[in-house]
Amino acid sequence: MERLVIEGGTVLPMTGQADVYENGVVLVEAGRIVYAGPRDGAPHLAGARRIDASGRIVMPGIVNTHCHAAMTLLRGYADDMRLMEWLQTKIWPAEARMTADDVYWGTALGAYEMLSGGITTFLDMYFPADAVARAIQDTGIRGIVARGIIGVGGPSEALSRLDESREAFHRWNGKAGGRITFMVGPHAPYTCPPDALQACAELADELGVGIHIHLSETRDEVEEARRNWGKSPIRHVYDLGLMKGRHVVAAHCVHVDDDDIAILAETGTGVCHCPVSNLKLASGRTPVAKMRRKGVAVGFGTDGASSENMLHILGSEMRIGAIQAKELEGDPAVYTAYDAVAMATIEAARVLGMESEIGSLEPGKKADLILIDAERPHLTPNHDVFALIAYSALPGDVVMTIVDGRIVYEDGRLTTMDGREIMARVREAAARLVRE
Amino acid sequence: MERLVIEGGTVLPMTGQADVYENGVVLVEAGRIVYAGPRDGAPHLAGARRIDASGRIVMPGIVNTHCHAAMTLLRGYADDMRLMEWLQTKIWPAEARMTADDVYWGTALGAYEMLSGGITTFLDMYFPADAVARAIQDTGIRGIVARGIIGVGGPSEALSRLDESREAFHRWNGKAGGRITFMVGPHAPYTCPPDALQACAELADELGVGIHIHLSETRDEVEEARRNWGKSPIRHVYDLGLMKGRHVVAAHCVHVDDDDIAILAETGTGVCHCPVSNLKLASGRTPVAKMRRKGVAVGFGTDGASSENMLHILGSEMRIGAIQAKELEGDPAVYTAYDAVAMATIEAARVLGMESEIGSLEPGKKADLILIDAERPHLTPNHDVFALIAYSALPGDVVMTIVDGRIVYEDGRLTTMDGREIMARVREAAARLVRE
Repeated sequence: MERLVIEGGTVLPMTGQADVYENGVVLVEAGRIVYAGPRDGAPHLAGARRIDASGRIVMPGIVNTHCHAAMTLLRGYADDMRLMEWLQTKIWPAEARMTADDVYWGTALGAYEMLSGGITTFLDMYFPADAVARAIQDTGIRGIVARGIIGVGGPSEALSRLDESREAFHRWNGKAGGRITFMVGPHAPYTCPPDALQACAELADELGVGIHIHLSETRDEVEEARRNWGKSPIRHVYDLGLMKGRHVVAAHCVHVDDDDIAILAETGTGVCHCPVSNLKLASGRTPVAKMRRKGVAVGFGTDGASSENMLHILGSEMRIGAIQAKELEGDPAVYTAYDAVAMATIEAARVLGMESEIGSLEPGKKADLILIDAERPHLTPNHDVFALIAYSALPGDVVMTIVDGRIVYEDGRLTTMDGREIMARVREAAARLVRE
Repeated sequence: MERLVIEGGTVLPMTGQADVYENGVVLVEAGRIVYAGPRDGAPHLAGARRIDASGRIVMPGIVNTHCHAAMTLLRGYADDMRLMEWLQTKIWPAEARMTADDVYWGTALGAYEMLSGGITTFLDMYFPADAVARAIQDTGIRGIVARGIIGVGGPSEALSRLDESREAFHRWNGKAGGRITFMVGPHAPYTCPPDALQACAELADELGVGIHIHLSETRDEVEEARRNWGKSPIRHVYDLGLMKGRHVVAAHCVHVDDDDIAILAETGTGVCHCPVSNLKLASGRTPVAKMRRKGVAVGFGTDGASSENMLHILGSEMRIGAIQAKELEGDPAVYTAYDAVAMATIEAARVLGMESEIGSLEPGKKADLILIDAERPHLTPNHDVFALIAYSALPGDVVMTIVDGRIVYEDGRLTTMDGREIMARVREAAARLVRE
């Protein structure tokens, strides 16, 4: 891995709102940040490749806390339908036809798309785990693989998927220079009975990893939980002990009451806020500012391309999440541009339990960073760099994406794979999947 | 003006959801559409420049129904503040320092930005009208100039601004090949007393133009109207006779009751829906699906860059407006991708009273159209072209913008002016305006 000197840009290490370094420097060596700050004080790095970042913003790679990347295969397929009709008549039949190869190409397209818009890490829940891991390896992105586990078909259904999760973990965990890691992925309380959730918790302990689960996404789900167990989904999984002594990453958490929020804060559960998906499916609006005031760590997630339609956070969740939070509480000051940029980087890293490795530009952390071209009409003038990123920047403004110190995307081109081949393979697969 | 044959792309004339022509053809002559449809049946156009649109989507230029373009000068300046504090301590003092030259460059930047994201027509409310008209002329965009009129300082204040509106109309209306037209722009009922509104109506009749006004943007405004006049702002201007016999374009209309909606429908008043601005300022959420069911014409508007932060509708109002409408009514089927694309094109043209000239690709209409590069990861695969445009496309996907048959933006470059100079002038002005 080469040495990089990235100089002349506006460096935002995301270590605090005051830390903005015009004409700053970032040094990278052996895949890690050596220095990020003002030009004065930067050590000399011999034999490094110099990257001119003048006119550009240099910041940590964006972290996508919740994704089903292979669903790019179904992007734009059967939008504008009601949830159950959509799942039963469109999505599930198409998913039933998906091969491991389809999932590989679909995930590769998702990774290509994410890297093109500055996302360097994603937490993915899909299957088969092998195909997802292979796409992470080949595209150069950083990914956490949570094989989706559903146990409605009885204990054996969940067990076979737990076995697949275990095998994939032993085959792939820590591979690709540490870019591939794992979580255990029980889909949701309404698809995983208590014994299946218990088995997931045991596997997480056996492998020493966290748990990724959907919680309280829709009003119907919460009402059903109250009928079945007399409590909310969050209280239910808490009482089952799932959140004790292990790191849980909970997607959505739209319909939460004060007790739910207290549980999330107390247990250090990370929340994936997916405002675009939640609006498009008419699920509701997460009280994100309130959760954060109560001490819950919240990061943005795209969800899959069937409900968000683009796997970009810049120009999408970041700005929509920010302005929605303002309107929801009736106060434009309740949520700031800096909050939005933090929730896409360092706070998202905290959601994943990875804040010691990614999410900010600090010496010793993984060199996951992006360059944004600020010399564009919609980024002119620059009165406030955080406002520019949160409210005005678009995925296409990302001109370079670096993961583990390696340039994986530059000036519109994926450097690790042939982007045109990925798109062609996905087009082929997509046409086959939706054939009646 | 040259002849153009645009061939090989997916042509969406926006004449109906079924009208999608793969490998279609658009012919342009003397600034007007001659043909838009399937390759078979396209007449021969001798001596034309051929534009290869394979892999691209060809559709009408996007219409921005509400803008204050020169406010690009203040983009990102003092975000995240409460409205009155923000206006009084930040925006108004900065605006008081603006010269006509500043407004020219700020509007030029706005036009450059809009053209780069596929907006070909905008309705602008700002001042001085001369500077706005000059920027429209020079950038090549199509614009309707509504000089903002405020009458709180007494009758003479409004009258001097009406005089300026009249003079600018006579100097500029129909100039630049017809790209520059006018409306009379009373700012709002809370800044224009009844006599000022009456004077605006008389001027509109004298000039034979419509009226552009802000109506019912915030809850406070509606409550104040009920205290002052015992009725809503919309009912107030209706009772004053403003909407009788002339075309009114009403920005926002967030807080509307059934009586308001009935008035808007009965009078054919066009509504500018600005969901991003309304969320960011915590103003509220317009019941857009309901309004349209009642027969009100609604188009998207960006508002100024102080509250929307980007003057793009593609990837912004179009997708946020669509998904918000779904959540607001609790039904993902209540508003479709086609609705969003229509509200950005043909329905927006109807809002402006310009549907016989722009908004769709039909023979005889102005040749205002855009090419979107669909061979990008976030636009792959293509299961539904309207879903791609509404939910996945981004401003940077626009690779060519044509106004009046002239290519004004191509592959990242404004062809009519030096984009770098515009940005440099705005940076200079912006720095001066915010100096304390």
